[in-house]
Amino acid sequence: MSTPQAKVTPISGFPEFLPAERIVEQRFLDVIRETFELHGFSSIETRSIEPIERLSSQGEDADKEIYAVSRLAGGGDEEARWGLHFDMTVPFARYVLENSGKLAFPFRRYQIQKAWRGERPQEGRYREFTQADIDVVDVGQLSPHFEAEMPLVIADVFSKFPVGEFVIQVNNRKIPNGFYQGIGLTDVIGTLRIVDKLDKIGPEKVKALLVESGATPEQADQCLALAAIRTDDLSFVDRVRALGVEHPLLDEGLESLTEVIRTGMAHAPGKLVADLRIARGLDYYTGTVYETQFIGHESWGSFCSGGRYDALASDGRNTYPGVGISIGVTRILGLLIGSGLVTASRSTPAAVLVALKDDASREEAVAVATELRRRRIACEVAPSAAKFGKQIRYAERRGIPFVWFPGAGGSGDEVKDIRSGEQVPADASSWLPDPADLVPAVTRIG
Amino acid sequence: MSTPQAKVTPISGFPEFLPAERIVEQRFLDVIRETFELHGFSSIETRSIEPIERLSSQGEDADKEIYAVSRLAGGGDEEARWGLHFDMTVPFARYVLENSGKLAFPFRRYQIQKAWRGERPQEGRYREFTQADIDVVDVGQLSPHFEAEMPLVIADVFSKFPVGEFVIQVNNRKIPNGFYQGIGLTDVIGTLRIVDKLDKIGPEKVKALLVESGATPEQADQCLALAAIRTDDLSFVDRVRALGVEHPLLDEGLESLTEVIRTGMAHAPGKLVADLRIARGLDYYTGTVYETQFIGHESWGSFCSGGRYDALASDGRNTYPGVGISIGVTRILGLLIGSGLVTASRSTPAAVLVALKDDASREEAVAVATELRRRRIACEVAPSAAKFGKQIRYAERRGIPFVWFPGAGGSGDEVKDIRSGEQVPADASSWLPDPADLVPAVTRIG
Repeated sequence: MSTPQAKVTPISGFPEFLPAERIVEQRFLDVIRETFELHGFSSIETRSIEPIERLSSQGEDADKEIYAVSRLAGGGDEEARWGLHFDMTVPFARYVLENSGKLAFPFRRYQIQKAWRGERPQEGRYREFTQADIDVVDVGQLSPHFEAEMPLVIADVFSKFPVGEFVIQVNNRKIPNGFYQGIGLTDVIGTLRIVDKLDKIGPEKVKALLVESGATPEQADQCLALAAIRTDDLSFVDRVRALGVEHPLLDEGLESLTEVIRTGMAHAPGKLVADLRIARGLDYYTGTVYETQFIGHESWGSFCSGGRYDALASDGRNTYPGVGISIGVTRILGLLIGSGLVTASRSTPAAVLVALKDDASREEAVAVATELRRRRIACEVAPSAAKFGKQIRYAERRGIPFVWFPGAGGSGDEVKDIRSGEQVPADASSWLPDPADLVPAVTRIG
Repeated sequence: MSTPQAKVTPISGFPEFLPAERIVEQRFLDVIRETFELHGFSSIETRSIEPIERLSSQGEDADKEIYAVSRLAGGGDEEARWGLHFDMTVPFARYVLENSGKLAFPFRRYQIQKAWRGERPQEGRYREFTQADIDVVDVGQLSPHFEAEMPLVIADVFSKFPVGEFVIQVNNRKIPNGFYQGIGLTDVIGTLRIVDKLDKIGPEKVKALLVESGATPEQADQCLALAAIRTDDLSFVDRVRALGVEHPLLDEGLESLTEVIRTGMAHAPGKLVADLRIARGLDYYTGTVYETQFIGHESWGSFCSGGRYDALASDGRNTYPGVGISIGVTRILGLLIGSGLVTASRSTPAAVLVALKDDASREEAVAVATELRRRRIACEVAPSAAKFGKQIRYAERRGIPFVWFPGAGGSGDEVKDIRSGEQVPADASSWLPDPADLVPAVTRIG
């Protein structure tokens, strides 16, 4: 419809892809969804809005990033108390409480949706973005083996999409928690938050901050020594033991992390490391925590994080503990596409353009297209009966690999691979393209 | 995370599905997407927000239905001028203008996204809903054959999803336009709007309104006679001619509608009717217009509508004419699922539950699951080594058809179809379920 000459500029932090880039995104989302489903996770989608009081109970940073939603013509009615969700966890918790009588526990769900945060946009940080979450929640108790299962699913996803080499870093919050208490530090959360800055400010400054917050230089050194432990096998246990600290929570954490890493070594070899520096800022994690980095792109930070929590939600009668992990889809794609590292071979799903001899033969061309589609070959009919050279350029511009000529071979049809120029007889009821050409190829460059 | 005891009630007009219902929705969306892609439409997604002045330029009803979006902590900054989009057309028009230099025209795109309208919720009307749109837009001129192509795509979608029998009603705005002018009525849009009320208020009242607006009783009868014409072949032309009205625009419209119906008869027999009552309220349609009804559920109204427009957008230099059609996904599903007409056979993608003999054999069970997944069979491992009867009930509750017993046959595994009770030897590297059990079945009831 005719729109006025209003500005058509992008809005910072609200990314949009061109068709070929969108094909990369779709492929990534398809891999994520198929993998989540192969692992037996059920899809849910929650509404985009939640009551603001539910969103803003989630901690200091949440409030100022919330987008409020209200009817433009509504005035001060109830809707002014809604906000767009900023993650999948708050709506999922509410969904579990609302439907607890209709769900089968342990409940394995995945959720791939947009979320919104009013933060300052920067490279890889968006105000509107897609996240892909898996969680397993149970009622009352959650079996610990689920903490070992999560990274296997993530390793499976990233093994199927051309992101390059990656590593899932795992820790257990009980390890620093027990360790800090074992050396006489009582402010566990405060200490974690300082150690969490290691990547940003380095060990010198972390030590200074720890001492400033009341630790002795020896205690600070012990904290740094723990955080420096990173192994791709079970040797982290001996290295922690060598620091000579004893605490029951530390024992529990080491045992639990051993199970996670042992499972990873068996079923996703080379993909998991025990990294005792990983903490996750959020204070609701109580057990295993995860982060993920791309090797060679560590400065991009973690693309996929999560952990175990004792209470996703509670309705007074029941508590719902769980474990979950979240893939930052838009963040990953923004960086991979923005850096030109991943591309699609064409800008349309069509593998074939059916050429038009003349306007009168459109019906014949549509019949060919219908037959190809019946056999799941995506195609389109040329928009006009232009010269064949022009029709071939139409296909070229979009990256469509094949042009079909109905009746070109006298009694039969012919199909041309416009990359090689090779043209051969073909029958729409039996011809198949190379499987690699059937759908757009999404590949990593370099 | 632990949330306070805030209310967990649904929000009217913001529907959410349970996992089995979501499987129905996913299947429908998969059919729509696959069909759109087979017909060579490229996917795009636009951001959820647009500047409010762009949204509110779209006509009288739009304004009061817009949801405004602003940072909760933002005060009066620029973001207060954004709103959630209420359809895909406004954002698509802006996307075309913004990216016109990077798109290949004619541009065939599909867009499956959520939209938001602050209208009063009622059966089949939602405030948050998913739409699936296809459009073809070109620069300057659009070839008329695209108007015949749109309903073929829609017929293809609805033939593959168990919605029951449907009919696509087609008209061309030039027919009533030319006809009204031919009988001496000059307020074409006003007359269309009155005739458009036929379904709601009946012919008597429509005639009264027409006379009230200045038509003679004879003119009003002519309008009603035109609107009563509905044929599933080309005989509508003779029936219009029999009314004895002449106008060049009427000739153009009849010729164009003949092409659309002729194409439908050839490639989607029985799915299209020429229905000269169809008008579409929106005044930007200039040629073919479409509506779709389910037979036996006419009171549900149209689920899929659209038409041809001369100017999707204009940037001063170029105008972008196009033709499009939009499927009301949430509307269809809300009614089909709400009426119990379509269901899924299970609430999880998993086809197999791998049973656990004891806790020590979890690694063996995970290895079976990994092998099944490698072969694209969705499965999960039992959450605990409970008695087998309890593990089978776990599968039953979710509708998982098969339970796998590693090592049950002495040296080998066995798999049980828990519906028939039949248990047979099986090897995870070669066993395949019946294709009908591989993914959840989505079926129409009655």
